[in-house]
Amino acid sequence: MNEFDYIKKYFKPLVSEEARHLKDDAAILKPKLKNDIVISTDSLCEGIHFFGTENPSDIAKKCLRVNLSDMAAMGAKPIFYNLAISIPKNKANFFIPPFAAGLQEDQDRFNLKLIGGDLTSSLKHINITISIFGETPSGCGVSRDGAQPNNILYVTGNLGLSKIGLDNFSSNLEIFNEAKQKYLFPQPRVDLGLALRKIATSMIDISDGLVQDSSHLATNSNLSLELNVSKLPLPNCSALKADEILNAALYGGDDYELLFSCDFAHQSYLNTLSKETNIKITNIGVFTEFKDVYLKFKGLDQTPKTISYSHF
Amino acid sequence: MNEFDYIKKYFKPLVSEEARHLKDDAAILKPKLKNDIVISTDSLCEGIHFFGTENPSDIAKKCLRVNLSDMAAMGAKPIFYNLAISIPKNKANFFIPPFAAGLQEDQDRFNLKLIGGDLTSSLKHINITISIFGETPSGCGVSRDGAQPNNILYVTGNLGLSKIGLDNFSSNLEIFNEAKQKYLFPQPRVDLGLALRKIATSMIDISDGLVQDSSHLATNSNLSLELNVSKLPLPNCSALKADEILNAALYGGDDYELLFSCDFAHQSYLNTLSKETNIKITNIGVFTEFKDVYLKFKGLDQTPKTISYSHF
Repeated sequence: MNEFDYIKKYFKPLVSEEARHLKDDAAILKPKLKNDIVISTDSLCEGIHFFGTENPSDIAKKCLRVNLSDMAAMGAKPIFYNLAISIPKNKANFFIPPFAAGLQEDQDRFNLKLIGGDLTSSLKHINITISIFGETPSGCGVSRDGAQPNNILYVTGNLGLSKIGLDNFSSNLEIFNEAKQKYLFPQPRVDLGLALRKIATSMIDISDGLVQDSSHLATNSNLSLELNVSKLPLPNCSALKADEILNAALYGGDDYELLFSCDFAHQSYLNTLSKETNIKITNIGVFTEFKDVYLKFKGLDQTPKTISYSHF
Repeated sequence: MNEFDYIKKYFKPLVSEEARHLKDDAAILKPKLKNDIVISTDSLCEGIHFFGTENPSDIAKKCLRVNLSDMAAMGAKPIFYNLAISIPKNKANFFIPPFAAGLQEDQDRFNLKLIGGDLTSSLKHINITISIFGETPSGCGVSRDGAQPNNILYVTGNLGLSKIGLDNFSSNLEIFNEAKQKYLFPQPRVDLGLALRKIATSMIDISDGLVQDSSHLATNSNLSLELNVSKLPLPNCSALKADEILNAALYGGDDYELLFSCDFAHQSYLNTLSKETNIKITNIGVFTEFKDVYLKFKGLDQTPKTISYSHF
């Protein structure tokens, strides 16, 4: 099979009307006047973001979900995605069919479609780049720079579980199953993101660790943020020491939980939302006028690092 | 430097207003009601699409230009591009600064800006994926499926020069300089594409070779196409035999010339356009009602292959 055969057989069934049956090298969007189009891109590389030994269907889902999480963080409704895969010749045949099947499952689950992309060979490793397109009512996307003094910082779900799953990926202990599942299959908080759009003054998804991503909110909003470390929603994992779990929660990446600021007056709305969605929403800090530093830690003995994962 | 430092120093100066200073992981487009948004994506991989030993500035230009060529083929005006780079840690430092400088030059030359993307490490090779965004008046994008019986097939420029440049890239003979330049720096026919939008019934850019790309027009339009091989605009290259040049013209990729169909009545408009732009526009074939095969060759003794470059 050449690239045209792969595209026709495995990717054409995934496309939206806007891809026009992939007959051209381009898709055509008909914009809606009252909406903004929100665009975000994430690449996942073999050996860096995934091992390469996972089921290709699982890799497909992770690729799509980390991008969906970016839409959630903007309060945008995902509508399309664009997919570029570069893959060594000898891997295409076993990788592409289950990869496309994984995409099909998750695009049905999250209600979006493929609009186009590129398929090429690479020399040694797989590279997958997805650009995702979402919609918000005009001017309603949530940015990272809108936090106000006295706004509360909230986070969804638990923190650190994905890092624990990654660190123990090769373990056969049952106790790590939930963590490994969270690492493999992050749950992008798309519906929560849409529900929070009305009240969040700033929002981000936690992909690089709580410390790094919360500091993005503080620096962009030009405020100081006091993180209350004793309030962090930590996972139960009896195989690990408390400080190992806390470390994963502070610096571990790949959680894909939402971190957002809003006025404390919305607490009851958040309680209701949490009950309806069965997703924890925890008050973990407060923003104040900028003084001295962007990030302060309450209830932490150690001096925290300021940077978590770095690619270079 | 970590990825945030690289982005801030080298890529932030390239961004458009829609990227909102890259403060979020997403750009926000405000659509214009009377325009369609045309989106296309091309990945370039080290060792496949480029050697990796070129000046990174030249690689940047090639990446942008192959995507610009896709806009030209749709008759779309390029407005933004989105950039994902995955690069080994030990290459980032010397690669990124000149790469960004090359982007700056070409985005000024072709009048478009960066709207966002991703920067990650990779294990061994560089992967660059660009998604490009263009505009057409609503419904005016040129597709590959609109050729009509008796339409003429035209091509811009010369054919095969880029393949000759690639095959002789390591040669020091001055005679190959023009070809090597064409391989390194394709000239996307953006202005021509816009001027042809009014009259072209189908259009494609030649990235995979004349035979393959002209067959896309024939199959998508469900017509037969007779290519007049004796009329092909061939480059002068006294170092090569005539059949080597013809082979490059028929099957060589990376020409990035426009191949389009239109009514013969537009010949005088094309003559004027050719004079104004100083770019050859040559009549090389004719479409007819479908009979037997999609592609026929007039003036060719050998039986042509039907597929040119294949990634897999």
